[in-house]
Amino acid sequence: MNKYLKKDKEFLTMQIEFLGTGAGSPAHFRNVTGVALRLLEEINEVWLFDVGEGTQRQMLQSTIRPRKVTKIFITHLHGDHIYGLPGLLSSRSFQGGEDELTIYGPKGIRQFVEVSLRVSQTHLTYPIKFVELPVDGGDVLQTDKFTVSALPLDHRITSFGYRVTEHAHPGELLVERLRELNVPAGPLYGQLKQGNDVTLADGRTIHGADVIGAPQPGRCVAIIGDTRKTNNTMTLARNADVLVHESTYGKGEGKQARNHFHTTSVQAATIAKQAQVGRLLLTHISARYAGKAANELAYQARSIFPNTRVVNDFDVFDIPFGKQGNTKPVKLTVPSEVE
Amino acid sequence: MNKYLKKDKEFLTMQIEFLGTGAGSPAHFRNVTGVALRLLEEINEVWLFDVGEGTQRQMLQSTIRPRKVTKIFITHLHGDHIYGLPGLLSSRSFQGGEDELTIYGPKGIRQFVEVSLRVSQTHLTYPIKFVELPVDGGDVLQTDKFTVSALPLDHRITSFGYRVTEHAHPGELLVERLRELNVPAGPLYGQLKQGNDVTLADGRTIHGADVIGAPQPGRCVAIIGDTRKTNNTMTLARNADVLVHESTYGKGEGKQARNHFHTTSVQAATIAKQAQVGRLLLTHISARYAGKAANELAYQARSIFPNTRVVNDFDVFDIPFGKQGNTKPVKLTVPSEVE
Repeated sequence: MNKYLKKDKEFLTMQIEFLGTGAGSPAHFRNVTGVALRLLEEINEVWLFDVGEGTQRQMLQSTIRPRKVTKIFITHLHGDHIYGLPGLLSSRSFQGGEDELTIYGPKGIRQFVEVSLRVSQTHLTYPIKFVELPVDGGDVLQTDKFTVSALPLDHRITSFGYRVTEHAHPGELLVERLRELNVPAGPLYGQLKQGNDVTLADGRTIHGADVIGAPQPGRCVAIIGDTRKTNNTMTLARNADVLVHESTYGKGEGKQARNHFHTTSVQAATIAKQAQVGRLLLTHISARYAGKAANELAYQARSIFPNTRVVNDFDVFDIPFGKQGNTKPVKLTVPSEVE
Repeated sequence: MNKYLKKDKEFLTMQIEFLGTGAGSPAHFRNVTGVALRLLEEINEVWLFDVGEGTQRQMLQSTIRPRKVTKIFITHLHGDHIYGLPGLLSSRSFQGGEDELTIYGPKGIRQFVEVSLRVSQTHLTYPIKFVELPVDGGDVLQTDKFTVSALPLDHRITSFGYRVTEHAHPGELLVERLRELNVPAGPLYGQLKQGNDVTLADGRTIHGADVIGAPQPGRCVAIIGDTRKTNNTMTLARNADVLVHESTYGKGEGKQARNHFHTTSVQAATIAKQAQVGRLLLTHISARYAGKAANELAYQARSIFPNTRVVNDFDVFDIPFGKQGNTKPVKLTVPSEVE
């Protein structure tokens, strides 16, 4: 059991870490795409979104270990999003990973992984499962805590965006209210918390529904694969706390973006605004925007959607409740790898 | 034409650069295997031996560019030796490479590359050719300047060692001798240099063979894939100027080395000594020998073969004539990328 689990009111940290934020080919300061959803406190797992070549080596500079990765969601099959997958799977095995790992992605991902492992005679120490998505996406995963849905985007090749929604947290027991009602503390509290009605010794009936607060809506992050501006992005992003979007091009490059099936900073910001997200994190930054030039993309976007940041490799962001906070990356304050 | 071509007596630099020197999985300071034979001054090409994941990103820290890579020799199909291949091929294309590229390696390399490129819908800008080696190896490449031969080693999976031999340089024209013989300088020198006999105005005949020095034997490097100690290594390494050998294990770990089909430092040194090579470069260093612990492997080997070095990522070594020099890495002194 996770010894860092916090109690009751405090909710557990959910974070997103960027292992690679470049486009096309690796560059000095940006590796190709790899995004980690850190659910270590929640469920002691890490979910990856795309695994570009070198992602496993980037992990050495983060606190994520391959064996914590239980689910991998691939947006599309371009090499800069998948060529790191066989190596990561091998190292997870090499390091003694035993838990089943599931890979979600477009049709073809299974063949790529299976041929890579077979040719290299790699025998994994853990079971692997593939879920190749139907072309129109859908709800691809439902756990007791999260739902992941996917929708197709508009790229040269089948490309999906993902929306991860945390289920609502049940309302808290209103202890002050119970005291006002002179309900004696004890096992009754537990029953009321579960929503049951209880009858007191004095004959009164207390309805659970009356002493439980409103449920806390879960957090939501949308991670969008390479794409032109498209309506499905809006659907995936609507009201998300965090929107991770590509910004391969900048303002004034709309034509190139369209021709190459990508998005500009300004288009991404427009989506963020219309979808009313909490914050926008721009990634998939072209080598043409090296160093400080990348800030240009952020300035352009902020004129439309202020709460925007161009992310860098190894940036970690909290995913807050209710679109709170700003776009500042966080320093990791809790042991990230929980045994 | 290569403007750095040197004339006559000066021979052109042939170098070996280590892009990855680790074993199995990437580590902080050692990426997985990638070795570059820099023939930039000779033929303006780079030949790679193995392409582990992340090799193309390592190249960003070297002076090698993917489009200079014309031949790739794969020792064996384990992931840490091939998973960087699709990405490198893609980037070579992305950067506008046009020259044909040939990949040599065990049966299976073609399927791995073709499936990777097909699934990712990568269309290369240049032709690619595969040469899958027969199980017993042989001469795999013969150019006007070099011969590359391969022999099978003893690994869990088919693994080859390669021997690259530069052809002998023809002897130089002995100008001093011609002056002694009063042969007038001019076009006759050219004919004599080509080995022809010429008749002078005074009736004397000068034999080309008499005024040409001994040919200079070419340089030779042996690059050995993962293997147990085996006789074929000796054959490949015999009299090589440089022997690149794996040293996954250290002294006293012979049993583990054998069980895992690898070699110890001491075994590699013994081969170097018996094969009478010029220098021994140990690579494929396990993460168990991190940092200074790797020196231990070198000390062990030097007790048997003094001219040994454990190499690090980005080390560059000259391949000298006649086993000269020591094992010190060189600083690159000439523009490495020649247009």
